[in-house]
Amino acid sequence: MGSGSSAALKLLSALAALGACERPLPMREAQTQAEQLRDLALAKSRAHDWTRELADGVGARLAGTPGDAKAVAWAEAKMRAIGLANVHTEPVAVTHWERGVETGEVTFPSKQPLALTALGGSVPTPAQATEAEVVELRSLEETDLLPEDKLRGKIAFFNRAMERTRTGEGYGKVSPIRRSGASKAAARGAVGMLMRSLSTAENRLPHTGAMEYEAGAPKVPAAALSVSDADLLHRLLAIGGPIRVRFTLGCRSLPDAQSANVVGEVVGREKPDQVVLIGAHLDSWDLATGALDDGVGVGMVLEVGRLIAQLQPHPRRTIRIVLFANEEHGLNGAHAYARAHESELERHVAALELDHGTGKAYAVAYLGGPNAASVMNEICVPLGSLGLSPPTSGTRGGADLIPLHPSGVPMISLLQDGTYYFDIHHSADDTFDKVDSAAMSQTVAAAAVLIYGLAESRDDLGRVPEAQRTRQP
Amino acid sequence: MGSGSSAALKLLSALAALGACERPLPMREAQTQAEQLRDLALAKSRAHDWTRELADGVGARLAGTPGDAKAVAWAEAKMRAIGLANVHTEPVAVTHWERGVETGEVTFPSKQPLALTALGGSVPTPAQATEAEVVELRSLEETDLLPEDKLRGKIAFFNRAMERTRTGEGYGKVSPIRRSGASKAAARGAVGMLMRSLSTAENRLPHTGAMEYEAGAPKVPAAALSVSDADLLHRLLAIGGPIRVRFTLGCRSLPDAQSANVVGEVVGREKPDQVVLIGAHLDSWDLATGALDDGVGVGMVLEVGRLIAQLQPHPRRTIRIVLFANEEHGLNGAHAYARAHESELERHVAALELDHGTGKAYAVAYLGGPNAASVMNEICVPLGSLGLSPPTSGTRGGADLIPLHPSGVPMISLLQDGTYYFDIHHSADDTFDKVDSAAMSQTVAAAAVLIYGLAESRDDLGRVPEAQRTRQP
Repeated sequence: MGSGSSAALKLLSALAALGACERPLPMREAQTQAEQLRDLALAKSRAHDWTRELADGVGARLAGTPGDAKAVAWAEAKMRAIGLANVHTEPVAVTHWERGVETGEVTFPSKQPLALTALGGSVPTPAQATEAEVVELRSLEETDLLPEDKLRGKIAFFNRAMERTRTGEGYGKVSPIRRSGASKAAARGAVGMLMRSLSTAENRLPHTGAMEYEAGAPKVPAAALSVSDADLLHRLLAIGGPIRVRFTLGCRSLPDAQSANVVGEVVGREKPDQVVLIGAHLDSWDLATGALDDGVGVGMVLEVGRLIAQLQPHPRRTIRIVLFANEEHGLNGAHAYARAHESELERHVAALELDHGTGKAYAVAYLGGPNAASVMNEICVPLGSLGLSPPTSGTRGGADLIPLHPSGVPMISLLQDGTYYFDIHHSADDTFDKVDSAAMSQTVAAAAVLIYGLAESRDDLGRVPEAQRTRQP
Repeated sequence: MGSGSSAALKLLSALAALGACERPLPMREAQTQAEQLRDLALAKSRAHDWTRELADGVGARLAGTPGDAKAVAWAEAKMRAIGLANVHTEPVAVTHWERGVETGEVTFPSKQPLALTALGGSVPTPAQATEAEVVELRSLEETDLLPEDKLRGKIAFFNRAMERTRTGEGYGKVSPIRRSGASKAAARGAVGMLMRSLSTAENRLPHTGAMEYEAGAPKVPAAALSVSDADLLHRLLAIGGPIRVRFTLGCRSLPDAQSANVVGEVVGREKPDQVVLIGAHLDSWDLATGALDDGVGVGMVLEVGRLIAQLQPHPRRTIRIVLFANEEHGLNGAHAYARAHESELERHVAALELDHGTGKAYAVAYLGGPNAASVMNEICVPLGSLGLSPPTSGTRGGADLIPLHPSGVPMISLLQDGTYYFDIHHSADDTFDKVDSAAMSQTVAAAAVLIYGLAESRDDLGRVPEAQRTRQP
């Protein structure tokens, strides 16, 4: 070949590399757009700024408290400031419980203070405190195996260690103790319930979290001991002989309070009535500033909204950012959302919640209709460079999405490394210094790719088949 | 050579390997004895049991409190139980300070609770609390460089991070802030002093420790913030604009109380009036059970005493186990010991204190006379298999040994890995679950080898030359 045809080949090759020799496919454009979003998020995510404002500026925001109301006002203003449309609040009646003074000590055979904290929803101790001998248990099931009167007049002490895992699945294995331990023990005559904190950290900070009383069982006060204090009780009991503990909880339940879900949108250019939901929960427990639970989730979903709102044109479908009220103590915001939007849930084409702390995203899971796999595989192509493994089928989605299950809304989970999350979760340690800004940027990048792809994709994920829909709890 | 002479050579060689061809040197016997002690400690140390009894059974033992008295009684009984001789207590007048209620919060621009704890010796806040704007400082020196009235009416906030090191030397670099920060700031008109905890952990648990008021400077209340809370203040200040903090300390100083050093011995077989001292301090701060500071030291020196007391015959010199009163808040026990034993300090041939937590020993340092090196090299031979590096010259010894410096008593330090020690030190986290029993056994083994060797060695370490003796503080 002469030099002329060589030059022509080089030009053709260069044009092909630019995509100039073929009519651009919308999917190709969408992928380029997704890649640009991804790279913008990696370079310039402001998610950690929003989280810092919420954690440091608003602080603790337990449902029904002044901090909760302040968070709602902050979130509404922030959504407007970052360019979301249709910003509004939707009223939610929320559980209202407050903590009060709490103290604990071993009183026999010798005095030792105990670091403990009431479980959310616990009744207070009697005015004279609860004092009794302690009986150690390893599981809920063990209460049924005890001799009939073994727990009568005693304090049940559930001491089951939580496993550290990347997925965070250790939490699910032990959380039934927190939810049901008090009623289970009270049904056998216990006068109080103490449990080892659901925590992977070995320190003196106890971890709170919601509990529930079963109808009919006596209501006894329930608190979590720090892991170190649970170990102390275990060592003292291992010596043999009775160990007595005294504790006081000044907590109380109040009538439901008013709060709100905060909602904003990026309105779709072609199918504005079809909704891709991305959410996080705005409330937190009261012991710290909820930086990781779920301040980082709030910061990240706001940032995904901000980045996509800047695109012109907008993606095909509407992206709805929802900051749920009171996830922690009753999922009130989640249920209120599902009720208020019942008529449009069939047009919710996907839902994703970020509520697993500050670790890097490592995988995507989804649950949709029969054709969901091919759509997800296409959408997730730009995630490879972020270190995520290919998407896999099977997820329940986040806690606030549970009320969407009966409608067959496809679920998306962005799995974040939870190895250290439960060191911090629900404890006084949940403050902004624990936030990993670089990991947040990576997760924002991944979430932006997913949400953009779901909103832009020509095909949707279908509906979750009836048989795979979990029932509303 | 024929087979007969070959067999004779083999026999000679085998006898040489057994040491049967030479008259056994006492040093060789001593080394064998030291190796047996070492291996016994590794296999069967009970140090962690003594530490557990002290931490879990006695608990916190701040000087002058009932816990302090209980610890003295426990230690005296324990020394008798493990076979020490001449067990007795020696009276010590100790600083008596108690903590009381303590609270803190950011009050402007928005409310945020602060986790803080009074420094030992602090005056209380006024009845209406101390509330003022906060001025951040990085060092003591910076107070001198500020404009004249910059601190007037303000709360000085010393925010210097502590470095994590194996040696623990990061602590020495920042501890002058705790000791002198309040007076330094008060001299410039500050109404209170807050500091970042001297801690290498990023959590919400503040670390206490002793402070001192300089004569003449106004006494202002002084407290340590948890590292997370110091970071919060720093972030709030970085935004710009005034930050106000309010804090209350209910602590108070009381008249000196009575406590005691607890002393026991393994009496020397040949030179009973020559003393090898091994010590630890019996007191602890009040926020936890002092498991690491200095419960492990107490457990280890008792175990060294127990193991050597079982030897027949005893080593040549007397080994004296001393558990010092109130190291934490004034070194009262150390000074009382030096005064009470002034006439025999010239016969103290070496002194070692264990007060650096639960990490493995990695080296030995010493300070003695001109011939100390050869004696130490000989004594330390059995430490190689424990992973210790050869002994090096140069150490001040432990804090309780400072009053022995002017007498030229040779100092020995067994350097323990302090990488994680200051995560725990002086905080509510100093509980028995943090104790590493295997590392304790290794350190007991090393200490037993050293103490035995120093007590048995034909040559001693001489005296520390005048020029190298530090002055009494």
